[in-house]
Amino acid sequence: MTDRVLGPWCPGGLALSVGGSQVLGLSCVIITGVWMEHYRGGFAWDGSSLEFNMHPLCMVLGLVFLYGDAILASRVFRNEGKSTIKVLHTTLHLGALVISVVGLVAVFSFHAGAKMADMYSLHSWCGILTLLLYCVQWLMGLGFHLFPGASARLRSRYLPLHDFFGLAVLGLAVASCLLGISEKLLFDIAPTYPNFAPEGILANALGLLLVGFGVLVGYTVTQEDFRRPLNPEEEALSVHFKTLTGEESVTAPDRPFQNPLFLAAH
Amino acid sequence: MTDRVLGPWCPGGLALSVGGSQVLGLSCVIITGVWMEHYRGGFAWDGSSLEFNMHPLCMVLGLVFLYGDAILASRVFRNEGKSTIKVLHTTLHLGALVISVVGLVAVFSFHAGAKMADMYSLHSWCGILTLLLYCVQWLMGLGFHLFPGASARLRSRYLPLHDFFGLAVLGLAVASCLLGISEKLLFDIAPTYPNFAPEGILANALGLLLVGFGVLVGYTVTQEDFRRPLNPEEEALSVHFKTLTGEESVTAPDRPFQNPLFLAAH
Repeated sequence: MTDRVLGPWCPGGLALSVGGSQVLGLSCVIITGVWMEHYRGGFAWDGSSLEFNMHPLCMVLGLVFLYGDAILASRVFRNEGKSTIKVLHTTLHLGALVISVVGLVAVFSFHAGAKMADMYSLHSWCGILTLLLYCVQWLMGLGFHLFPGASARLRSRYLPLHDFFGLAVLGLAVASCLLGISEKLLFDIAPTYPNFAPEGILANALGLLLVGFGVLVGYTVTQEDFRRPLNPEEEALSVHFKTLTGEESVTAPDRPFQNPLFLAAH
Repeated sequence: MTDRVLGPWCPGGLALSVGGSQVLGLSCVIITGVWMEHYRGGFAWDGSSLEFNMHPLCMVLGLVFLYGDAILASRVFRNEGKSTIKVLHTTLHLGALVISVVGLVAVFSFHAGAKMADMYSLHSWCGILTLLLYCVQWLMGLGFHLFPGASARLRSRYLPLHDFFGLAVLGLAVASCLLGISEKLLFDIAPTYPNFAPEGILANALGLLLVGFGVLVGYTVTQEDFRRPLNPEEEALSVHFKTLTGEESVTAPDRPFQNPLFLAAH
């Protein structure tokens, strides 16, 4: 058994993983745009079906791509300070939230114009649950970060929950998109879908790419090999923190994510 | 800051989490059975739509409930030996695989009888991908466990991948079920679905319960608080292993899952 065998599975693994996720995520946004533009008549904001077309584009761009990138931020920028990463994480999440709300308004506005029922389908139930949980996650994240009583140690207990539910809601967002794709195809091309109509194949492929993006984001942020190392300043702060608390370490060896500095980077 | 605040979020958290997952998982199986029996005419194995009804039941029972329980096995039975857990994990996965294959045969057999197209929908693409990846996960797990050249250290490098992709495939299985539910409702009750027909509400609720089951299984196996502690015999083996390898520990402090004994328990 050589060290080479026992080294990382792939030395450039993080770059490959992040690069792959960006290729998949951007492909999803582009394919959604092409689908709506080429097969569904393009975009408008006039209460027509062209306004509906804003819905899939906004959701794939906001609630999947930007949301996923916000999660990735802490792994990609390994040499930046924690405040830079924090600003990036928050900015990407803010963009994701605003674009998602625009996408939600688009579909409700279209339904109102066409006098169609709202909120009856499994897609709508999962979609609205995704957005609600995303807002809860936002408020909890801000609350634990801004609330003066939330000490570093209490925040460090919250971080694993924030990490887990961040990924779970991303998974639910992807599942909601899959449901939306399937519903749209069954509404629009039911007669030709079973004959492998090009629109159906394109949209199905979009579904698989969305799954790939979600899995790759999840993989990147859960593999310990890819975890952002502390920089020298943070190492010094960590030692200072240990001295202040009089403990061996705030982070138990089996709780790598429960580190106040790692939390601060979020 | 008191210790109480810094203790586990909930002392009986593991029991609640596992108990909750079982309530959700069993509810999913029962509701699927009730949906097919009460609204779709029951079950048969004669190439008719009653044979199709076996498909959702088998997939929810095998590819979601039993699969999820196989993943949970290592956290629930904290006081059992590793070989007992290993047998349970493998047996549950074997049951999941066999039942899923029966469910797959049911839908292909129904399609053949009704001369319907196969494999054109996003549900079918995601479903078949789930089953393929599940088989790959099975073969990789068996291979790394049985292959004589796969040393404990090499296996310990594989375990985080096995853990991650196990959960990812479970997530994909749940997403495939959601797509199947949505598709079935749009095929069968399109005119009454927008009026909140009871069948639609029941099936939508099933979708949300499936999501809840998947999230709870994921939560249970990723929270460090719930990790199975080593028993005294395993502790002794661990020390022996360290002596043999001449290393401080095979498990780096930031790689809690990469422990050969934890791997052996899988």
